[in-house]
Amino acid sequence: MIRRTSQDIRRLNRFEVLRRVYAGPGAMSRQDVAAATGLSFATVANLTAELLEAGVLVEAGHEESGGGRPRARLAVNAERGALIGVDIAETSVHAELFDLALTVRHSVERPLPPGDVRPSDVVDALAGAVGELLAASGTDRARVLGAGVSVPGMVEREGGVSSFSPYWSWHEVPLRALLDERLGLPLWLDNPLRASTVAEMWCGAGREVDDLVVLTLRAGVGAGIAIGGQLYRGFTNSAGEWGHTCLALDGRPCTCGNRGCVEAYVSLRGIAETWRELAPGDARATGPDDAVTVAALARAADAGDPAAAAAIDRTGRYLGAAVANLVNLVNPQVVVVGNQVVDLLGERLLPVAYEAVGRHALALPHRAATLCRSTVPHNPVTLGAATFALEGFLDDREVFGPVSRMRKAAKGGAGAGG
Amino acid sequence: MIRRTSQDIRRLNRFEVLRRVYAGPGAMSRQDVAAATGLSFATVANLTAELLEAGVLVEAGHEESGGGRPRARLAVNAERGALIGVDIAETSVHAELFDLALTVRHSVERPLPPGDVRPSDVVDALAGAVGELLAASGTDRARVLGAGVSVPGMVEREGGVSSFSPYWSWHEVPLRALLDERLGLPLWLDNPLRASTVAEMWCGAGREVDDLVVLTLRAGVGAGIAIGGQLYRGFTNSAGEWGHTCLALDGRPCTCGNRGCVEAYVSLRGIAETWRELAPGDARATGPDDAVTVAALARAADAGDPAAAAAIDRTGRYLGAAVANLVNLVNPQVVVVGNQVVDLLGERLLPVAYEAVGRHALALPHRAATLCRSTVPHNPVTLGAATFALEGFLDDREVFGPVSRMRKAAKGGAGAGG
Repeated sequence: MIRRTSQDIRRLNRFEVLRRVYAGPGAMSRQDVAAATGLSFATVANLTAELLEAGVLVEAGHEESGGGRPRARLAVNAERGALIGVDIAETSVHAELFDLALTVRHSVERPLPPGDVRPSDVVDALAGAVGELLAASGTDRARVLGAGVSVPGMVEREGGVSSFSPYWSWHEVPLRALLDERLGLPLWLDNPLRASTVAEMWCGAGREVDDLVVLTLRAGVGAGIAIGGQLYRGFTNSAGEWGHTCLALDGRPCTCGNRGCVEAYVSLRGIAETWRELAPGDARATGPDDAVTVAALARAADAGDPAAAAAIDRTGRYLGAAVANLVNLVNPQVVVVGNQVVDLLGERLLPVAYEAVGRHALALPHRAATLCRSTVPHNPVTLGAATFALEGFLDDREVFGPVSRMRKAAKGGAGAGG
Repeated sequence: MIRRTSQDIRRLNRFEVLRRVYAGPGAMSRQDVAAATGLSFATVANLTAELLEAGVLVEAGHEESGGGRPRARLAVNAERGALIGVDIAETSVHAELFDLALTVRHSVERPLPPGDVRPSDVVDALAGAVGELLAASGTDRARVLGAGVSVPGMVEREGGVSSFSPYWSWHEVPLRALLDERLGLPLWLDNPLRASTVAEMWCGAGREVDDLVVLTLRAGVGAGIAIGGQLYRGFTNSAGEWGHTCLALDGRPCTCGNRGCVEAYVSLRGIAETWRELAPGDARATGPDDAVTVAALARAADAGDPAAAAAIDRTGRYLGAAVANLVNLVNPQVVVVGNQVVDLLGERLLPVAYEAVGRHALALPHRAATLCRSTVPHNPVTLGAATFALEGFLDDREVFGPVSRMRKAAKGGAGAGG
């Protein structure tokens, strides 16, 4: 069933207005926001009044408008509150404290125990990291508007349940309920593919475009998809499992149990395996930590090792063919590539990959798609997770929406600003 | 730039209301439509008034409502006008005349010349077919609200240009402009993937769900994608080229110039090739017409030929792996499979394919997705093309929208119905 009630549209437009103020080159006027969103000036003025009233936006001076009334410049009120973003990765928990302008104020990393991690290990590490963040930055817990948590694998978002983990032997873990007791903060759970995508939408390549695909290339591999300026989740919040699409029928075994998956070739593990195939006797290719191995691969290629260079070339061709599949199927405006694999191998890998996309993609969608590296500063997963908390706050019916409007009406006014 | 103006939303909701009346099990009340769409009763009443005023809907009796006021039953006014849907295929042009209830009233098929077809051949065949349709059904051209035309390959929809044809050596052909002179009808061009998808949305499996993938399996292979009850087109109207995603890296050559594409394995041509691989000496597998060959394959398998049965099994495994890629990436609610390949081989092919989807797809999106055969009667491409004309008519600002509302305001009324 579609939901296009006026309430839903108001909510989407509220996100959109704020996203444009974040994305703007500097402080933006209401006219600038109206032009950037395609919304009417009256709608923008109305939504802006609500965001000013809630203290999310402030007016920061005026700009001349060529003879007319000076236009107020809108800016995000960084001090309105704090947001926390958490990236639960394979071997560690990374937590960051952001202000409302999405600037990192403090970072903490805690290792996870080696081997099979239990839910309580994650909860302990996460609660510890958040406590340390608050203490070290001198932030009162009450100032935190919410925390977003990225959990690898499949996440049942409404219920806050980790349905399936690619690394650990757990299923249907009610992670939000477990964390709730320990954190006492509004919590939003989702996975790193979607966190990276909203990070691009608010702070990266997705600021300027509405249709984009964001590739995550690290231990796990996947795609986040945004359509019409909104994250596309699929029917059960599991869209984007590009890492487990088949690129080479009956090919290499993948951790998912299948063969020939994209992830089996372009994840850290897959790249290490390609190096081992091409340099069977090379001890540098056989370490237990794939990230360390891929870092060694980059150094070996830089030092002129031909097998290392060939392993990166071959990975580029795999990656290019797999990206071309997305270009042909989704026809996006922008494809963003990022994360560990790109940080370690990007300079050598991406030119080969882009050239392979050109060979494999159809001409029209290939011409339409811009391929680029992520420009999100720091860790896009923690930033995206914090953005989920921001979106959650913007959904708060006590602050926005009918309850707030009724309260204001009872006070006899429609809010400041306007 | 997003466009979420009140005008856009009104237009989308107008489609949605009408789609639900088409989809309904019988005549629906405004209350039924409100429940099915999630729109408010007031919005539905307002949009219904507009559709009654335009003569698209009629009130067809009343139903009891358990003590309250009897509720008017809404129905589509089949006699409001005619629609034409045209399927330009590889070897013929198929045109059908529909009434406004999307029931076929008359069909015509005209062959295209063998070999490299020129744009003028298509225009001649199409104009001839439409003329014959109108004459044979005694339909006045002025009663036709519009014609939708499905053109294979990539279509620049706004300009009505056939950018690229998979069968013929033409590029950037301004087909709408060429047809305009000959037909004198409002024209909408798009490709068979999208036509099949809107056919499912209005008359098939997509009536009940908003997120679906519709697979076309004939000479060409591709996917239409609907998200949130709307056709997803991609940035340059070329989304859905699933047939040209790579399933088997460095595999079989494809007509697109690449290797290992899905189309190279599950199109009529690809299936014939698999049969030839498995039965090298079999003359039945070597005919020039792939549809004839695949029909012979079905008969051979029915007669107990083991190589023929193996060719269908192998095709089912290819198809299943390729469908699993869509399930993992898009996470749809429904996947509809249809067209020639399914008509010819469905009984044997689909059980094998469905089983292979189960092996290749991840558990969560696989559980979420219902796989089914198309239930659209007749040719989904002509029906979908006619539906494009219907959508075009619903977009007509002379009939709906501000011009119409201003005209009504000038007359001093807000329209009948309500």
